[in-house]
Amino acid sequence: MDARPIGVFDSGLGGLTTVKKLIECLPGEDIIYLGDTGRVPYGSRSRETIIKYARQDAAFLAGFDIKAMVIACNSASSVAYGILKDTYNMPVYNVINEPADAAAAITKNGKVGVIGTTATIRSGVYEAALKLIKPDLRITSVSCPLFVPLVENGRTAGDDRAALTIAEDYLAPLREEGIDTLILGCTHYPLLRDVILNILSSGVTLIDSGAETAKLVAGDLMERGLLSESRLACCAGDSQANAADASAYSGSAGIESENMETRLSGAEAAVRYFVTDSAEGFSELASRFLEMDVRGMVEQITLE
Amino acid sequence: MDARPIGVFDSGLGGLTTVKKLIECLPGEDIIYLGDTGRVPYGSRSRETIIKYARQDAAFLAGFDIKAMVIACNSASSVAYGILKDTYNMPVYNVINEPADAAAAITKNGKVGVIGTTATIRSGVYEAALKLIKPDLRITSVSCPLFVPLVENGRTAGDDRAALTIAEDYLAPLREEGIDTLILGCTHYPLLRDVILNILSSGVTLIDSGAETAKLVAGDLMERGLLSESRLACCAGDSQANAADASAYSGSAGIESENMETRLSGAEAAVRYFVTDSAEGFSELASRFLEMDVRGMVEQITLE
Repeated sequence: MDARPIGVFDSGLGGLTTVKKLIECLPGEDIIYLGDTGRVPYGSRSRETIIKYARQDAAFLAGFDIKAMVIACNSASSVAYGILKDTYNMPVYNVINEPADAAAAITKNGKVGVIGTTATIRSGVYEAALKLIKPDLRITSVSCPLFVPLVENGRTAGDDRAALTIAEDYLAPLREEGIDTLILGCTHYPLLRDVILNILSSGVTLIDSGAETAKLVAGDLMERGLLSESRLACCAGDSQANAADASAYSGSAGIESENMETRLSGAEAAVRYFVTDSAEGFSELASRFLEMDVRGMVEQITLE
Repeated sequence: MDARPIGVFDSGLGGLTTVKKLIECLPGEDIIYLGDTGRVPYGSRSRETIIKYARQDAAFLAGFDIKAMVIACNSASSVAYGILKDTYNMPVYNVINEPADAAAAITKNGKVGVIGTTATIRSGVYEAALKLIKPDLRITSVSCPLFVPLVENGRTAGDDRAALTIAEDYLAPLREEGIDTLILGCTHYPLLRDVILNILSSGVTLIDSGAETAKLVAGDLMERGLLSESRLACCAGDSQANAADASAYSGSAGIESENMETRLSGAEAAVRYFVTDSAEGFSELASRFLEMDVRGMVEQITLE
């Protein structure tokens, strides 16, 4: 049992997909989130700059006496995971390995696609992880540098002409290859799900790297005895189990479900959000990502 | 006569359009350029963050004992010009006023369009500047947040499908309004010239904010007696005058035109480039912007 918070960082908003899943899986855990919104995007910057920023992000989180750290940004995971893992004496998670495991297990025809930022694809980490698990996989990797700007500008509707035109262009090699499984190797990309599925065959399974990692984190912290609650809430993946776990949580915390919802939405500061640009702008977009109102829970800080 | 350099800063690459014009107009001047490539783009960040970054950029340039400062970024000009002008005891130029003057003088039907980043359009500075000159102008302003990512990803060809789809969307209100003059209120946008002209009628005059400002800077520094050379090279705007000025320059400096070209291409370090992300990545893109090879002239620095 460990009541300390879990630290999560991302270049900006994307990592909130991981936070959302973590909240679902581990409603009893406090989370400290850092989004480096003053310097987003990371994926188009050099390896050295991404490492420098990731080190600063991690140092900020470590200041909160966290029990574990999640690098909820594929670009930072790709180039800085090894460094941060060696720097901090706590479990450090990337968003690469677990989605790679999931993709290797799911694919039937052995043809896996990977899409990500320029930094992530250039690093080749997904290919390496996939090849390690199943050397005979056929992997097609494509960098999609305009996907993050599309998401950050709200162009995510399945019928958005600009998004469809850009996606058609990027995803053509994946369609030609006939992949049956696609790793969304950037935490922004799940928001483009409808656009991507409109281009690829609906038979393609999309792997959400942030969500997959959140499930791993939940299970791993439980195994290590590092949870503040004794049960996971929902990661078993079936709704009956979820309901049982949720009530177990509610019972153990001695609060009604309505109060639990209040707690999850932050009134008791179970989740704290820090950003390097305006808290106001972030709150608006984050509420859309998380499907819950986070106003009043976001603070602006300076990283150096 | 003042041999000190001129300082120019931008969020990234865009300001190089200003530098290019400055080099053409003032081949005898040394220039210090700062591109904050580690934190680009500015135009989607909050006013406060842009001001903070602009202050840091300006302070870095001021460390070089510059004689004048050009804020070659519309987003920074929009929100930080007044502050920097009051902070530094030297001529400080923005990229707003001169293009507004030019547009007001050029328009025949009184319908002027302005396109820029979210920060620039939200600030309303172009509207204010235009209304001050000609209160009866009809101004249509549109923010085009995906234009900078398109340029930074090299999607600038006149037939690029993604660029055309996005431009069609953004420029529709300008076409409907029947504008005859369009201010490109972001130093990245001149690279999308072909795309923009493919959407708008070819009768629309495009005003390049960086180039207009460079001409103003050249003339103003001459008037103030702050040039290191006594004549401007080319800003008179006609080729005969240009030739005369160029030879005058060549004469006064006592060097052959071939040598002058060498000097302009930086062999004597007349222009120094500083960036906050990798020098290598910048050199490649900058060479495309400037149409000259700048490798070996770019240094990476840290701003804080």
